[in-house]
Amino acid sequence: MPNTRLLAQLEARHPAAIARAISMVENGRPGFEALLSAIFPAVGRAGRIGITGPPGAGKSTLTEQLAKAWRAAGQTVAVVAVDPTSPYTGGALLGDRIRMESLALDSGVFIRSMATRGSLGGLATTTREVCDVLDAAGFDRIIIETVGVGQSELDVARIADLTVLVMVPESGDGIQTLKSGVMEIADLFVVNKADRPGADRMRHEIEVALGIRAGNAFRNVPAHHGIKGSAKAPIPVKTAPVLATIAAKGEGVAELLQAIESQHAAIQASGELAARRRRRLAERTREVVDRAARRWVWRETRADALFEERLDQLAGGLTTPYIVAQEILEDLKEGSRT
Amino acid sequence: MPNTRLLAQLEARHPAAIARAISMVENGRPGFEALLSAIFPAVGRAGRIGITGPPGAGKSTLTEQLAKAWRAAGQTVAVVAVDPTSPYTGGALLGDRIRMESLALDSGVFIRSMATRGSLGGLATTTREVCDVLDAAGFDRIIIETVGVGQSELDVARIADLTVLVMVPESGDGIQTLKSGVMEIADLFVVNKADRPGADRMRHEIEVALGIRAGNAFRNVPAHHGIKGSAKAPIPVKTAPVLATIAAKGEGVAELLQAIESQHAAIQASGELAARRRRRLAERTREVVDRAARRWVWRETRADALFEERLDQLAGGLTTPYIVAQEILEDLKEGSRT
Repeated sequence: MPNTRLLAQLEARHPAAIARAISMVENGRPGFEALLSAIFPAVGRAGRIGITGPPGAGKSTLTEQLAKAWRAAGQTVAVVAVDPTSPYTGGALLGDRIRMESLALDSGVFIRSMATRGSLGGLATTTREVCDVLDAAGFDRIIIETVGVGQSELDVARIADLTVLVMVPESGDGIQTLKSGVMEIADLFVVNKADRPGADRMRHEIEVALGIRAGNAFRNVPAHHGIKGSAKAPIPVKTAPVLATIAAKGEGVAELLQAIESQHAAIQASGELAARRRRRLAERTREVVDRAARRWVWRETRADALFEERLDQLAGGLTTPYIVAQEILEDLKEGSRT
Repeated sequence: MPNTRLLAQLEARHPAAIARAISMVENGRPGFEALLSAIFPAVGRAGRIGITGPPGAGKSTLTEQLAKAWRAAGQTVAVVAVDPTSPYTGGALLGDRIRMESLALDSGVFIRSMATRGSLGGLATTTREVCDVLDAAGFDRIIIETVGVGQSELDVARIADLTVLVMVPESGDGIQTLKSGVMEIADLFVVNKADRPGADRMRHEIEVALGIRAGNAFRNVPAHHGIKGSAKAPIPVKTAPVLATIAAKGEGVAELLQAIESQHAAIQASGELAARRRRRLAERTREVVDRAARRWVWRETRADALFEERLDQLAGGLTTPYIVAQEILEDLKEGSRT
């Protein structure tokens, strides 16, 4: 049974309850799945916006500005900052938190940094579930800020309704790279630090690259599993706008917010939002199954005992991980019980 | 049965055979596990050196210099460059490959960039297995170059015999971060770009931080699974040397190579190398089991069919991923067959 008091406090958006629920989920503490299952019906109201881009593109500053702009428009905002390559940026994350402290005093804003190494689940699974907690807590907008897109473990496009790719004029070399995968993922492009040389050229190059793509306007969000049924069907995309901002001065932020809202409305109207959410739901359900299966294998079957038995033989080169895996699998198939 | 011709070519260090074997492993193509199992007895001769550090620290240049130095000393060298946050650095990786082209003409050197999103296995598992292929092919030294340490999916300390952490004077802020996790992982510290201001202070700060640690000289390499038997036992560490290099000019590289060899010899003599390898082997075997179990669940049981059946109900909010996972698990426990 889920903790009903925690659920009630979560619904009332108590910061301490939110933090506690997130910690439960992050650490896979007893009852976290019951909690997530209980809040599930309340999930789906928040708009989830992914902000991604290379290190140093100004994602955090832009996130802060967007959060402020949404607050000014009467929306509540949660920010989930994830960095799969930490702890190098541990300092930066801390800095962000300090920088966003003015926001943190506002009960309509909740900021959480994640640097979890996903123990039994993956980072993507856990991030999705943290977003669910925030969604159930009633935040109108959830900003998921992360480096890495397209190929990283935490592909934000697999988590967000809508993905904003932030670049800087110096990312020029990246255009070539953009064509090979990232282009398909972003719903909105931002050239930040647009007062630097090369910003106009950068915008132009992105637009040209998008134009090239126009003849082949299908998106194909890569599925997590290389397994059938992963909902890989290509669906048409809207043309992604390219905006310029100077986040540090707040310039272009209002236009960006407007563009995000328009794109969100457009993908909602076209049925694409529903399609994305369905795909996300399918993928995440598979991940929840994987996690549960893993727990079962190691905690409730003979797998762990067999593994321990074979460890010396493995170390002695008398068997291989693949032979041991096969043995354990045979045992599972025969209905292994501890 | 593994492909015996491929095995023979691999042993003879044919570049095309190595590349083919690596691709098989990276993509999990049929027979890859049989191949890995067949080469397993030949694995364990290569010294695996992890080179890690923040973006821009000069890891690639240092890697190239080390490779050259080892070649000059008559050793064969394989380089595995991994970037879990690509494709932003796709350009950079390409640049590296071009930069290292002089080395690539040398049959005693093999360079491979990896930007795999681990389909059924994880990036760490796949990287370990790619290293096995190179190990079996008879390379004396394998350099694994990657960003991210300690918390990232690809924690190089879980893969290498010995880990070198490369920083630059500008990483100064990072010292605070170092104390919280990274310090325990590195066997060697390098302050690269040591002709820049702040290099001496940086070295000093690292040494002070190491001194603080001296009172508590235990390492605890985090295990992948939050499960018992992951061989988490703390083992004593040797004091990690702090070196200065200017990789772009080749300065300090000979000293670094010497320090790597000494540390390697020291951890070998103390029995720590064997302990690390055993821990690595245990962890990887668990991962191979996880991968095999996942494949079994989705391809050989009713899980996939059940999942497909529930998809509409999920989308309609009539059930939750957690309830579906429980159903599938119950079915597995009862001896699910397709």
